[in-house]
Order: sequence, then structure tokens, then C-alpha cells
Amino acid sequence: MEKEVKTFDAIVIGSGPGGYLAAILFAQKGLSTAIIEKGDFGGTCLNRGCIPTKALLKEATFLEEAIKSGMIKKSEDILSFFKKAMEKKDIAIQQVVGGLRNLLNRDRITIFQGEASFIEPHTLQVLRDGTSIEPIHSDRIIIATGAALKEESQLGRDGKKVIGSDDLLKMADLPTSMAIVGGGRRGVEFATFFNIFGVQVTLIEKQNRILPQMDREISVRYKSLLTKRNIKVLTDTEAKSTEISKDQKTVRLQIVSKGKSETIDSKMILWVGDRQGYVTGLHLEKASLNLQNGFIPVNPSMKTSSPGIYAIGDVVGRGCLAHKAFMEARVAVENILGQSTRIDDRLVPICLYSNPEAASIGLTEEQAKTEWGEVNIGKFPFMACGRSIATGNQEGMVKIISEKKYGEVLGVHILGPSATELIHLGAMAMRHEIGVEEIKEMIFAHPTFSEAFFEAALDTSGEAIHMMKG
Amino acid sequence: MEKEVKTFDAIVIGSGPGGYLAAILFAQKGLSTAIIEKGDFGGTCLNRGCIPTKALLKEATFLEEAIKSGMIKKSEDILSFFKKAMEKKDIAIQQVVGGLRNLLNRDRITIFQGEASFIEPHTLQVLRDGTSIEPIHSDRIIIATGAALKEESQLGRDGKKVIGSDDLLKMADLPTSMAIVGGGRRGVEFATFFNIFGVQVTLIEKQNRILPQMDREISVRYKSLLTKRNIKVLTDTEAKSTEISKDQKTVRLQIVSKGKSETIDSKMILWVGDRQGYVTGLHLEKASLNLQNGFIPVNPSMKTSSPGIYAIGDVVGRGCLAHKAFMEARVAVENILGQSTRIDDRLVPICLYSNPEAASIGLTEEQAKTEWGEVNIGKFPFMACGRSIATGNQEGMVKIISEKKYGEVLGVHILGPSATELIHLGAMAMRHEIGVEEIKEMIFAHPTFSEAFFEAALDTSGEAIHMMKG
Repeated sequence: MEKEVKTFDAIVIGSGPGGYLAAILFAQKGLSTAIIEKGDFGGTCLNRGCIPTKALLKEATFLEEAIKSGMIKKSEDILSFFKKAMEKKDIAIQQVVGGLRNLLNRDRITIFQGEASFIEPHTLQVLRDGTSIEPIHSDRIIIATGAALKEESQLGRDGKKVIGSDDLLKMADLPTSMAIVGGGRRGVEFATFFNIFGVQVTLIEKQNRILPQMDREISVRYKSLLTKRNIKVLTDTEAKSTEISKDQKTVRLQIVSKGKSETIDSKMILWVGDRQGYVTGLHLEKASLNLQNGFIPVNPSMKTSSPGIYAIGDVVGRGCLAHKAFMEARVAVENILGQSTRIDDRLVPICLYSNPEAASIGLTEEQAKTEWGEVNIGKFPFMACGRSIATGNQEGMVKIISEKKYGEVLGVHILGPSATELIHLGAMAMRHEIGVEEIKEMIFAHPTFSEAFFEAALDTSGEAIHMMKG
Repeated sequence: MEKEVKTFDAIVIGSGPGGYLAAILFAQKGLSTAIIEKGDFGGTCLNRGCIPTKALLKEATFLEEAIKSGMIKKSEDILSFFKKAMEKKDIAIQQVVGGLRNLLNRDRITIFQGEASFIEPHTLQVLRDGTSIEPIHSDRIIIATGAALKEESQLGRDGKKVIGSDDLLKMADLPTSMAIVGGGRRGVEFATFFNIFGVQVTLIEKQNRILPQMDREISVRYKSLLTKRNIKVLTDTEAKSTEISKDQKTVRLQIVSKGKSETIDSKMILWVGDRQGYVTGLHLEKASLNLQNGFIPVNPSMKTSSPGIYAIGDVVGRGCLAHKAFMEARVAVENILGQSTRIDDRLVPICLYSNPEAASIGLTEEQAKTEWGEVNIGKFPFMACGRSIATGNQEGMVKIISEKKYGEVLGVHILGPSATELIHLGAMAMRHEIGVEEIKEMIFAHPTFSEAFFEAALDTSGEAIHMMKG
């Protein structure tokens, strides 16, 4: 190598939630730290995932209420609202990305804008426009490069009529119809979003239910909510190919639905299908690493098979979630610094942010029955909750699954208002072994949605107060 | 007595949250139970308190956003929105009251619609239009008759220009200006509500800060938020008398503000001042009971000084809160049935539902410092929280007060989005001795407002991630 190799105490590749947190934690422990980013600072979460989609969903929820109350009627007004929503989303992105840069500067982290590429297991070069800026070295490397749509999950993607979620966030206009391929959380979020903006949506999921990671009861109820909204939901359906019509006006999606070949014509196709670890340009092989089933394999300490190299976040798979990446960043840094913490995947909440929200933690009812045999189910519908009635948020329920002997909470599943916040009561209970009997001892403020959590705990032993039985 | 005396295993006087829960708990234990109500079923909470005000505040929050986004401009539109909001509020009341009647019927509780009046310590007559319907007897009596504005807290009240919160919920029109006397939670809620509907509001509080039950930091920040909204806030100010002008168009309020006599002219005065136990017609003296400082005195088991007679809810004072009444109902029934549970007042959350919300549990910073000397304060502003940025809810903070040795949580104070739900994380932590170190071990979903709670715990030891320091 001709250029001098700079050495850092730690190098992090990728600046999404996992990467930036790892860098901050290293820096706060006094390690000289470098972070390399070839795309947008903040990664998927800040630029194309969590933050922008939540900004858009919040606007959609408001729009829906405005339409219901008769304040907005005309489709021009909806389009202009859409454009304003997109602007607000951009402002939110600017704010979080700006905030992140401040944090990195605060902690004196060296920022490399460019593509990281392994030369040797502990030496990387940073490339800009194909040219190496500078080779850097560290005994401690964390790969946090994220994930991207699989090739086969974006057939025909042209960024215009056939798009991925990245393209979507730059949309300037609304199509009249859209087929969304992928019925997981993001697929459902986009389906409700575009539905509210007047787009005719077809949602396609290859498994036998939408939201396959969540409790079956939530899947079933959510499907019927989507259907009520006039979203067409096709489960057991695989997308096979796309073809743009000769007049460029529609795009045809070839599907196999419950074994039968069919086609769906719409103005746009949105792929939110399977993702895989994004390692383009990284030259993993030079660090003696490679993808397995699309992701970098790690042990419960987030260590790869290559000494001194860890991987965290979407690039290791097991669900693409910012807070999973946060947790993995902590675990990786702690292990690198000599502790021996391990991931506890059981306690990662999963959240759906469309209206109504949904959230899950721990075992689903099916999983709990498989693992534990008989279990207790406590359930309370929001339609019997005072705050829900007062505010017109009556859809959904809280479900607490507990084991029979000590009442230990095994899983919590919430569909309904504030589900994504309420789920943390489940997270706290499960992390610190607060059983249903202990939940019953608490005082819940009235009127709050949290009371539904309390009543679900009471229902475990048939003691729910505000519920008609049988 | 001429009529035959019917005997019940238990009698509950009053059907608000405390009363109806006590009746349900008795009935679920197999006791023949009577409940007596002379006014509206469900008491203040369902008819004039929690439920209707939360319904109205929800509409106000929506209206505010609609005004901001330019969807609503004209004052006629605001008035018509007000009328619709009042209708929605009435529908919510009907639903909760209807639900309550179903619950009482479900549990075969005997309902007496009429005025309860003691004849002897354990015998009551139920009067309708001044005539006794039927004398009833029980060894177990719970008084849950609620509270009403003190005489001196409703000077000049005529139900039209000088009103209490009960009158307010029947309003058909909006005044152009209003003086609200009482700067506690309900006063602040009404102030923001009418402000959003274009009413010029003056809020008057006799103590040296609004929201005097909450942490001083919340009082101070909320005052500046109200001022920003163009609400005039007068603290250290006592209301002395009211006088309606000769043309009946305005009403003059005489005040003493920081020692100086002044007057405020407005179109309407709303009293939300001090309340006292409501026992009109009850003839407490025949049960050898009387009010002390306006409330029925009870011990920590909710027992009055008269054997076999308990009192719960607003009639015993110590803050008028439905969930305090719920808890007291449980404690009273458990003690009557032979257990010896006691009230733990420390763990009652206090909630403010205007926008932004606020909520408190446990000791305020001042109280904690007085009781514990030095304490740890962890604080995190919502402006650094991803979900707040994404959804434009950046006002406020989470503050966790903990003791220094074990990190035990002493108090949690939240101003900001979902405060009234998030507070239950504090409630659970405090009830089950989960200290700040244990909170740090949890995984919080991203992006959620709950992350601010996590970051506040991290900040206790200077480890908050998403915050610029100094």
C-alpha cells in the first residue's frame, strides 16, 4: 500500500441505527472511532424507513379524519395534502439526520463518506468515485451495512412504475391503483397509507396470512380491517413477473394465487418483499466472511467467524428492526470491550404503525401453546375501554399470554390505539418477571388505553371489570 | 317503619367509578348487592368528567391541526365543529352509561334510582320526589357519593354566564371570552379547549403556579405553553366576587392578584375551583358520621368511624380521580370481606389530557429532595426523540427521579406526547421496584415515544444517546 494506513481503536461500517450507536458507544468509552457511510447518513431507518414512514402515516391518519369529518372532499385537495405530507416527511428526515451528525461530532467520531472495502481482515479502504481516499485499520470492526431488497423481490423495478420503498419516498404524484407485494408490517403500512390517499390497493402476501410475524388473531383481524377499507388482500399468493403495457400506462403483475395463475393490472407496483444483507462493494471475502442465506452469520455476541469482526443490524437478518440493531450494537460493543452479554431475541417488540396500530412481544398464542402446552389467555377489547369510547378508537384488543403456574408473561399482543407504546408494559413485565398477578396490583390512570392492559391481566382469571362475558 | 325493610348483603350509595366497581366486586363474590343513584348513572366521571372532557379534548386537538393545516378558517366552521364535538361527546356518554347498565345487570345488582338517606347507621330509605320508595338495610355499606363544587367556589353561578363544569357540557354556543377560575388539571384542560375554539381565555389560580399537584418543571413549562397560545395566566390570584353587567352582556370578576384588587370582564366565568364531599340529603348524622374539612374521614382501609360503613372516591377527598376511586373500591371491598389491604397513595398517577399531555406519579423533584436529600435526575426532551420528530410532537420531556443508592424510582414526570399512557411504565417500575438500571436493560421499540423514557433512565448516569449535552 502506498498511502499511510491510519489506525483507529474501532471502525464501524454503516451509519444506520446499529452503526451510529456502536460508534457513539465506542467513542463514549474513549476509543478513537471511525464510521464509514457511502450513502445517506442515518441509513434506512432515518432516510427511507422508520422516520419518513411514520411521518407519512401520521399525516395519513389525520387526513382520514379530515375526510371523515367532511373537511376534505376533492381529489385535488387530497393530492395537495399528499405533497405537503411528503414535504413534512423531508423536514423530519433533515432534522433527524442533522441531529445524528451533531451527535457524531459531539463524540469526535471520524466520519468517512465513501464506500468501505476490505483489503485484509482488519484493513479497509474507503473509496469515493472508485478511488481510494485512505486505507484504515482497526483491531475492532463492526459491520452494520444494512439490507436491501433481494433481486428476486424487485422484478422489473424501474423506479417509476415498478418501485421499491426507496423510490416511493420520492413520489411526486399519486397513482390511481397500486399492487403492493409483501404483506408484512411495511406492506400493510403502505397499503393503508395509499388507501387513505384514494389509491386502489391490492396487497399480496405469499404466506397464508398478512403480518405473519404477529399473533394470528391480529393477522386475521387486520385482514378484515383492510378489506373493510376496500383494500384487496391476497394471501397464499406469489408474485412471478411484471410487464409494463405498451402505452406505458399500466403494469401487469403475474401472480400464482392459491395455485392458480392470474394477472393484476395496476398503475404501479410496489415491492416490499424479502430483504438480504447489503454488502455490495464490501469484499467480505477479504475478511474471510461471506453471506449465508443472504445474511452475515453471527453468534449471540454478534461476533462473526472472523476474529475481531462483528456484525449487527439488518445485515445479520432476523428481522429488520432499528431497535434490534440498537440492542445488537450494545451487545457487540460490550463484547468487544470484554463483557460477555448476549442477545435475547425473545424481548424485541414488533410494531405496526398504521391506523389502528399493532404491536407484539414474546411468544404468539400458537408458539406459546407449542412450547408450554396449556397457557392462560387474558384478553380485553378496546371497545369496552373508556378512553377508546371517548376518543372513537374502539378497534382491537390487548391479549396477554401467561404460563399457568406462576402467571409469568410469555407474550403480549396488542391491536389498537397506542399499541406501539403500550407494548412496553409487556416488555417491562417480561424482562423483569412481573406476572399477571403483579400487573393486577398496579393502579392504572382512568381514562387511558393502558387500562385495557390491566383488564387483560384481570381477564386471565375471569376478573375483567368492564367487559360483558360470554 | 311501615314498609318492610329489604336486606342486602351490601349496599353502595352512588354509581360513579368507585360505587359501581364496589357493587360489581361485591356481586362477583356472590353478595346480594344494591346500588343507589339519585342523579345520572356513572356519576361525574362518565357524565360530566373524564369521559366527556376527553371526548371534547380529542376533537379540539384535531380541530387545532385542521386550523393549522388551513382546512378550517372561518369562525362559523369552528362553531359548527364545536356543535358536532358536543354531539360526539353525548354519544360517548351514552355508550359508557349504557355499558355500565349492562354490567350492573350482568351481575344482578339491584338498582335503586332515587336519593339515599340514612335512617339508622345500617338502614337507608330511598326517596324519589321526596317520597320513600323503600327502606333497605345492610351490614355492609359503602358511601361513594362523589364531590361537588364548594359553595365559595361557585360565587354567582347562574348556569348561564357564570357556570360550573357541569353546565359547560350542555353549552350550545361559544362565548368570545371566558375567565376560568382554577388552574389545576381541569382548569388547564378547559383553558386549552376553549382557546382552540377561538375563545379568549384568562386562567386564574390562587397558588403560585398552575398544576400545583405536578412537578414544578411541568407547571412552569405548561404556563409558558399556555401563554404562547395567548391564554392569559394569572397565578397568586384569588377570585372574590362576580357581577353581571346591566345589559347582561358581560360579567365582571373581582380578583386579588398578588395582593392587588383588580377586575376582569368577560362573556363567561367558569368555576373549576375546590370541591367538597357531596352528601346532600344523605343525613350522615344518622349514621353518626359527618364531614371534616369537607370530606368523610376514613382510615387506610377506607373505613369510616361508624362500624360497617366505608367511604370511597371523591367523597373522601385526597384528589378527585376515578382511578383513585377504583382502587379505593377494591380496598374497601377486600377489607369488608376480611382481607386487610391498604391504600398506597404514592402510586396514583395524575394525568392532564390537553395537548400536550402531562402525567406524574410518585414524588416531585422538590418532594424527593426534601425526603431523600440528594437524588438522581434523568431527563430526556421529546425534541430529540425520533417519533416526536417524525410526527411533530416535540414539546416536553420525561423526567425520572431516583434515589442514589439502588436507583429505585421515586417519581416520574412526563410532559409531552402519550404522557398519560407512558406514565404507566413509571407506575410499573415503582410498584415492582424496577430501578433505573433495570429500565436500561429493556429493549424499546423504535421509533416510539417510550424511547424517551428509556433515554431518561440512561441520562440518570449521563448515558443518554440521542441528546446534545451541556
